[in-house]
Amino acid sequence: MSYAIINGAIVPESEAKVLISDLSIQRGYGIFDYFRTRAGQPVFLEDHLDRFYHSASVMRLSPEVDRERLKHLLAELIEINGAPNAGIRITLTGGYSENGYTLAAPNLLITLAPYHYDPASFDKGIKLVTHDFQRQLPEVKTIDYLQAIYLQPFIREHEADDVLYHQNGAVRECPRANFWAVTENGTLVTPADRILKGVTRKMILGMEDLRPQAAHLPLSALSTAREAFITSTTKIVTPVTHIDGLPIGSGRPGPVAKAIFDRLLGMRGGYE
Amino acid sequence: MSYAIINGAIVPESEAKVLISDLSIQRGYGIFDYFRTRAGQPVFLEDHLDRFYHSASVMRLSPEVDRERLKHLLAELIEINGAPNAGIRITLTGGYSENGYTLAAPNLLITLAPYHYDPASFDKGIKLVTHDFQRQLPEVKTIDYLQAIYLQPFIREHEADDVLYHQNGAVRECPRANFWAVTENGTLVTPADRILKGVTRKMILGMEDLRPQAAHLPLSALSTAREAFITSTTKIVTPVTHIDGLPIGSGRPGPVAKAIFDRLLGMRGGYE
Repeated sequence: MSYAIINGAIVPESEAKVLISDLSIQRGYGIFDYFRTRAGQPVFLEDHLDRFYHSASVMRLSPEVDRERLKHLLAELIEINGAPNAGIRITLTGGYSENGYTLAAPNLLITLAPYHYDPASFDKGIKLVTHDFQRQLPEVKTIDYLQAIYLQPFIREHEADDVLYHQNGAVRECPRANFWAVTENGTLVTPADRILKGVTRKMILGMEDLRPQAAHLPLSALSTAREAFITSTTKIVTPVTHIDGLPIGSGRPGPVAKAIFDRLLGMRGGYE
Repeated sequence: MSYAIINGAIVPESEAKVLISDLSIQRGYGIFDYFRTRAGQPVFLEDHLDRFYHSASVMRLSPEVDRERLKHLLAELIEINGAPNAGIRITLTGGYSENGYTLAAPNLLITLAPYHYDPASFDKGIKLVTHDFQRQLPEVKTIDYLQAIYLQPFIREHEADDVLYHQNGAVRECPRANFWAVTENGTLVTPADRILKGVTRKMILGMEDLRPQAAHLPLSALSTAREAFITSTTKIVTPVTHIDGLPIGSGRPGPVAKAIFDRLLGMRGGYE
């Protein structure tokens, strides 16, 4: 049996429920964050908690539990579920609104699921299809993935694995990952703004010897890019082999992606 | 005690819950519709059900109950709650997703709340503040009101009652209502597309003697408009007296709004 936590109480997952007056159900209003554990230890937890409380604050959601109490709850959940390698999601919703519109006391929902990283996924890479779209409130990790899920048939029709958003000629992000390119002249670039700033992206921006740039990345630069890859907590570094059916560089994982991947695995202590 | 219906089962509202794996909570994925009852009878029900099933279809959500069964459930809910004048909300979510991303069997949630229309609200009118925003999937009644709720402090700061979205110089809609203007030359106009097409809007477009136009409405036309008003199931016709602090026409409810309001009340059988 697996357990979840609702507002501080540990409950079996099969009984982890909220009233349908919750603003996430009524109005799609909520934020979350997601981190991994390795050998029972959270990976980059402080960065995820920083972002969680930032998202909550921007959306005017005040979690009842403070950071220390939240860390304690997370440790309890990891302990009771006994899954050393897992993904943990902390969701904070608009709460049980009296009128279905006004914010109420937020509901804090914490769930855990086993996570297995497939080491073959780096070599396989992924194919992207582009789509003109700008996420609303892009720098907040809201629960809004309406567009991404709506686009699933579009992605399949284009024989792609995921979608790459762009707008006004600028590359933005994938629905659940940041995007990076090694441009024609060898510069390592990730879009600077109007995106969700990922924790893995932050780690790479800290690798100063690679001279990573957070900058404007024109969509037109992709056709001449040497490499492209996406980064996220679950995908770590995943090479992008094709965009809109055309190969990026050699159409195979590139050396910059590989070097960053290996370095990140070192920071996280290996695959899993 | 008030009751709700979850997937065909009548439950007390205090026990009307869904698992937190539901895609509305996980990914903000769901649609709904909302209609009113008067003296226990649904108002414009067929139009609302048309739109409900259309929204469901676009979002690839197949409700388990067909239209006849749904109408039967609605009648049961009205009967058991015993509220002759009410608002009923039918929500359809992405369901209990195994991986938190892929659509599952949708959950159908029906709730009822008493509704009282205040006849003084027509004479009072409302003030709007404009904001550059385009709703995603605008012609589907999704549960996404993230932006609208996020903007509540912005609305208050501008001493307004609600926000009017526009983009690329074109007026769109309010978060929960359609917008209409009587232009400088006396034409009755509502934005044509990239909006949610309301049932009240449809009724007004059917009033041929008023020559209503669904057309491009430039934001710049508002400063010279004779009248403006918004329409919705709950607001019926509510005059807009000010936009961005400036009066529309006389700054008081206008004759076209009043004529349409009276005619709609006749179609609905009065206030309540």
